[in-house]
Amino acid sequence: MSAGSSLLSVAAAVARVWETVRPLPEVEVPAGAAVGLTLAEDLAWPSHLPSLDVSAMDGVALHSAAGGEEAVLEVAGTTCAGEPPGPPLSPGQCRRIMTGAPLPPGADAVQRVERTAPAGEGRVRLLAAVRPWENVRRVGSERRAGARALERGARLGPVHAGLLALLGRASVRVIRRPRVTVAATGDELVGAGEGAAPWQVPNSNGPLLAALVRSWGAEVLEAGILPDRGPELREAITGASRRSDLILLSGGVSRGDLDLVTGALPAAGLNPIFHGVAVKPGKPILFASSRDGRVHAFGLPGNPLSALVGCVLFAWPALERLAGRPHPPAALQARLAEPLARGSGEREELRPARLSVLPGGGWQVAVLHAASSADLGAVARAGALVHLPPRCSPLPAGAAVAIIPLPGASQEPLPLPTD
Amino acid sequence: MSAGSSLLSVAAAVARVWETVRPLPEVEVPAGAAVGLTLAEDLAWPSHLPSLDVSAMDGVALHSAAGGEEAVLEVAGTTCAGEPPGPPLSPGQCRRIMTGAPLPPGADAVQRVERTAPAGEGRVRLLAAVRPWENVRRVGSERRAGARALERGARLGPVHAGLLALLGRASVRVIRRPRVTVAATGDELVGAGEGAAPWQVPNSNGPLLAALVRSWGAEVLEAGILPDRGPELREAITGASRRSDLILLSGGVSRGDLDLVTGALPAAGLNPIFHGVAVKPGKPILFASSRDGRVHAFGLPGNPLSALVGCVLFAWPALERLAGRPHPPAALQARLAEPLARGSGEREELRPARLSVLPGGGWQVAVLHAASSADLGAVARAGALVHLPPRCSPLPAGAAVAIIPLPGASQEPLPLPTD
Repeated sequence: MSAGSSLLSVAAAVARVWETVRPLPEVEVPAGAAVGLTLAEDLAWPSHLPSLDVSAMDGVALHSAAGGEEAVLEVAGTTCAGEPPGPPLSPGQCRRIMTGAPLPPGADAVQRVERTAPAGEGRVRLLAAVRPWENVRRVGSERRAGARALERGARLGPVHAGLLALLGRASVRVIRRPRVTVAATGDELVGAGEGAAPWQVPNSNGPLLAALVRSWGAEVLEAGILPDRGPELREAITGASRRSDLILLSGGVSRGDLDLVTGALPAAGLNPIFHGVAVKPGKPILFASSRDGRVHAFGLPGNPLSALVGCVLFAWPALERLAGRPHPPAALQARLAEPLARGSGEREELRPARLSVLPGGGWQVAVLHAASSADLGAVARAGALVHLPPRCSPLPAGAAVAIIPLPGASQEPLPLPTD
Repeated sequence: MSAGSSLLSVAAAVARVWETVRPLPEVEVPAGAAVGLTLAEDLAWPSHLPSLDVSAMDGVALHSAAGGEEAVLEVAGTTCAGEPPGPPLSPGQCRRIMTGAPLPPGADAVQRVERTAPAGEGRVRLLAAVRPWENVRRVGSERRAGARALERGARLGPVHAGLLALLGRASVRVIRRPRVTVAATGDELVGAGEGAAPWQVPNSNGPLLAALVRSWGAEVLEAGILPDRGPELREAITGASRRSDLILLSGGVSRGDLDLVTGALPAAGLNPIFHGVAVKPGKPILFASSRDGRVHAFGLPGNPLSALVGCVLFAWPALERLAGRPHPPAALQARLAEPLARGSGEREELRPARLSVLPGGGWQVAVLHAASSADLGAVARAGALVHLPPRCSPLPAGAAVAIIPLPGASQEPLPLPTD
């Protein structure tokens, strides 16, 4: 950020973050704790699905050759789901069978219970004929043992919690969950609810950054408010480096006398990779890394909106990279709901916007008026940030713009189709 | 589900769920625990923002009438951010001031530090003139005390964690987080990783439903596997009714001998509201409620894909209603990536599909081949369920279809715009 240096574009800064940060080590975790993490092994089906020929209905298992309409068969016991197949059928026999239960040896079909009738002591009459393999889920018909179930690199979601169980897995290999220390700097700050004097400011960046980082699936260590004194800052950053993969600091990164984060990071062994991006708000952002590449830090501007923008644009990609994702987070395209009266200046610009779903699919945004780069009030009603290129002209309604959806933003509902 | 009864459509069943379930009571929670919950009070700004006239720059505070180019002023101390405004300026004086610090009485402008130069002992020279209120964020310019910050009914996201702090709120009134008991029934089930015999089935519905419900923000009580014995089922359901707002059971809801959930729910005081929806998969779903409307239960089919579909279609709206959302979850519209070769039959149909973002905005889906209604393997690669109306004809590529995105599904990335 020295006078003559040209600032990085957002894309160039994201690329620097992406090439500097490396994915975290692989670890084995209980299957129930894997949701949100990146799979670090290929998963295969351990056995055929179904593992045996099983009944698809409640009914009687029999051999189809003996299953003509009006046939009367001796009922030789019952197999419930979860029980072994039982003894082989003798000629003239059938066996009562429940959905999901394995067929006894000698059976190749199931007649559903609704198509049978009692026929005296221990006997049943078929009300309709059965074809071979009718109402049977055949062994291996859905999956063959050894078939690939999921590839290394997949992001595990709720459905995969079920899949892992189905594969018989109690634990699974994943990329470790990132650990992030969040701290605000500034002697003007007081904790929320602690009663700020008019010349003091509640620490909103701490809770904001912590909640953002949690929404992206990382573990947060909240370090509260750090003092504007170099040695204490350095000590706090050194401590955080031992406990976390990423450190998010807000405040103290512009050019004033007390902008101590800029000095404290290198003193704690975190060397600047870049300082300053040609973006509004959020220009004085600082990105630093330890020599061994194990710990990274962002010095974000102290204004809440600037801190939010810096976190979404740069810390989010860093977290995705740590978590082993294949690409940085995606920008989406949306249509402007209203004309954009004021274009951007020399820097790329991020503006809070309401987000809604168009009836025909796709997104629509209405840019919100933010009073200043401290104005979290406007963002509180936003579902996305509109990302304008530098020197962007005013745009008509309906023009396509790039947007970054904000986490936890609710979208306008559309009704389910009715019939 | 008796022979002659006509089954509900999905929309009619969702409407029954929505009108039966009521929002949970309001509670006061710490601000940090409010993300994901529904705001149950209107929030207002407690004071002007800024609360005083504060400097927007590091520099010197002065009266603009004394701030002509080349003016030399006596420096009367320093105000840092977080300090009170200090003593009034005397004529010929200025005061060193940091970004965010309040102006001293008698000052109406700030000249930034880069536009000043030392002028001997305790004096400073201005390199440029200042205008009134230049580099000053005026009291109340961004927000007036008492202005509305956020409305009751908003879904609190990460940004609101910052907003609550800025409002000085350590706690906030919200709709209580729903508590959900999840249990699977079936004597054929064994816990994941406990080594299933070929005729046994790992309990995948328990982990699947628990992870889905957690992704929607509810608290989950996992009750494992319940036995196929009426009295024990009833007792377990009665116990769950005391601890939870919603009970999700899988298995035991079709017409076979051992479909005990259908009987156990009323025995535990949860009376059927509907049993059976004209949807494939997931037809035999059962929805029940206590007489006082305080506890609700779904009996979901035991097949994993059917349980997933039932949970997404019906339990999700129930959770949204409990959580105080204004509408049931939204279906979105997407375009088919490939022709839909096989239309739907007499029932509405849900099919797992890959989800991607179209370059011009909007969603695209490619329907995946699912081997059966037990096939969680196909859904593991899906980002959405395609929702077809009944008697839907085959469709060409590009046709519009309704989709329900699955939680935790990753989307195809698009690059950020470059300049």
